[in-house]
Amino acid sequence: MSGELRLRRRVAFSETDVAGIVHFSNYFRYFEDAEHALWREAGLSIHPVESAVGWPRVSASCEYRRPLRFEQEFDVSVSIAEITTRTVRYTGTITSNGDLVATAAWKIACVDKQPDGSLRSTEIPATVRERLEPYVHRPSAVGHRPSDTA
Amino acid sequence: MSGELRLRRRVAFSETDVAGIVHFSNYFRYFEDAEHALWREAGLSIHPVESAVGWPRVSASCEYRRPLRFEQEFDVSVSIAEITTRTVRYTGTITSNGDLVATAAWKIACVDKQPDGSLRSTEIPATVRERLEPYVHRPSAVGHRPSDTA
Amino acid sequence: MSGELRLRRRVAFSETDVAGIVHFSNYFRYFEDAEHALWREAGLSIHPVESAVGWPRVSASCEYRRPLRFEQEFDVSVSIAEITTRTVRYTGTITSNGDLVATAAWKIACVDKQPDGSLRSTEIPATVRERLEPYVHRPSAVGHRPSDTA
Amino acid sequence: MSGELRLRRRVAFSETDVAGIVHFSNYFRYFEDAEHALWREAGLSIHPVESAVGWPRVSASCEYRRPLRFEQEFDVSVSIAEITTRTVRYTGTITSNGDLVATAAWKIACVDKQPDGSLRSTEIPATVRERLEPYVHRPSAVGHRPSDTA
Repeated sequence: MSGELRLRRRVAFSETDVAGIVHFSNYFRYFEDAEHALWREAGLSIHPVESAVGWPRVSASCEYRRPLRFEQEFDVSVSIAEITTRTVRYTGTITSNGDLVATAAWKIACVDKQPDGSLRSTEIPATVRERLEPYVHRPSAVGHRPSDTA
Repeated sequence: MSGELRLRRRVAFSETDVAGIVHFSNYFRYFEDAEHALWREAGLSIHPVESAVGWPRVSASCEYRRPLRFEQEFDVSVSIAEITTRTVRYTGTITSNGDLVATAAWKIACVDKQPDGSLRSTEIPATVRERLEPYVHRPSAVGHRPSDTA
Repeated sequence: MSGELRLRRRVAFSETDVAGIVHFSNYFRYFEDAEHALWREAGLSIHPVESAVGWPRVSASCEYRRPLRFEQEFDVSVSIAEITTRTVRYTGTITSNGDLVATAAWKIACVDKQPDGSLRSTEIPATVRERLEPYVHRPSAVGHRPSDTA
Repeated sequence: MSGELRLRRRVAFSETDVAGIVHFSNYFRYFEDAEHALWREAGLSIHPVESAVGWPRVSASCEYRRPLRFEQEFDVSVSIAEITTRTVRYTGTITSNGDLVATAAWKIACVDKQPDGSLRSTEIPATVRERLEPYVHRPSAVGHRPSDTA
């Protein structure tokens, strides 16, 4: 298993801005959509109708290499870099016609909702962990990756 | 009382599109923001943390007269055209520097959420009706306006 | 030819709102994306890199029948109701699992950009008209549809 | 001079998602709006009608500490961390009622548009640099900050 989910998309008009290119904030939506497709492929939903837990973003970053323009086709690929007991860390890439467009990294945390509405970090349910595990990217593994302690 | 809520805004970069003007879908967000400001001025929230009812759109329409551009200042004004037992109908106008930019009309319905998640039309709570009444636009009123039966 | 373009989509997380359903403004983006897919199927782009003309919205309206929720699949279909010398009028429908979700109507105008940046109505280029003509919905035509005089 | 631009905002309904909080991608729009307000306060526009240069994002990152909810008021503050010959690097903070909500860092590059439409890095015009300089955040400066070589 490649540990990767790949989606092909095309730039929508409403995603562009007056500079003639996709607004930078929309790249984060592209990556999120691919992340959620990964969950579906794993037999999960990140937001089922009834769920005791939620998955807010802890951090998100993107490096922009090339612009995307209206109607341009591109590929978004996402894999899981690491699962800790309470967080999932992803990396993603956007390419178009063989060119690197953007790279991104982000982390989500498993939380439960307190009676006062606040969100509290909690452990990832075992069933979720099991289904996401096959998507963890394992590099050819000579060295060790430092553990995420968040 | 004027029965009108007026907001001044400035076009954000992310609201524009590759044609160099505000994307037409964002006008609906401008009008909605003014609608919600009207509720706040009336001492209400359209989506309080705990609420038995919700207010989905039944219909929305907009006529576009002039484009809006990045950083352009404009005014959004909203008033209530009619309140029926179960719906609120609004009209709104966007102007910029004295020029008419757009006009809009939309209707929201009061609903409660069924156990299966579906939405069912219900009567507007009396407290909401009382607070919105002062914002109903009453034209100088020779003739009668036909009642909205939706 | 059916005179219709149909797209299947799935609701993205970023398209939902705190009411738990797709924000009403996003329906306009769904319809616009299907409209632009219709242009592509017709061998056109509504916004080519070099173009003497643009196509702003003149009006847009939508009637909402049922909510759409996160990850729900739905179909958007668009056809052209009428082409005049300067405008194109569309109608569209969203359905999901056989249920009607929304209907919409909108009109775009062909404009050219004046040296001062303002937009002026102009005639639709012949090549565009020819390619869009097959998508004009011709109902089985006992009565006549009144002409759009915009 | 504080080297900081501060804006107060309120969460709009369309900025929330089905999790009941502001969608994480919208934080980037909040920071960008404050950045552009900084340019206006400096007597500039980041996208004037006629301009030889543009300012795409090179990178953007955000750390999320607390959620924002519908109608919540919050403050966005932005300052310039560094100006190099070709880039501007910003840092920003969102707070609400005294609590830290998010921190962000991002970098924009000055580019000119090539005849083929591609974007090429170029030097920041002197007039822009002069006007932005007062907004560069100068910490109390015992050590040296490493130069950005992008």
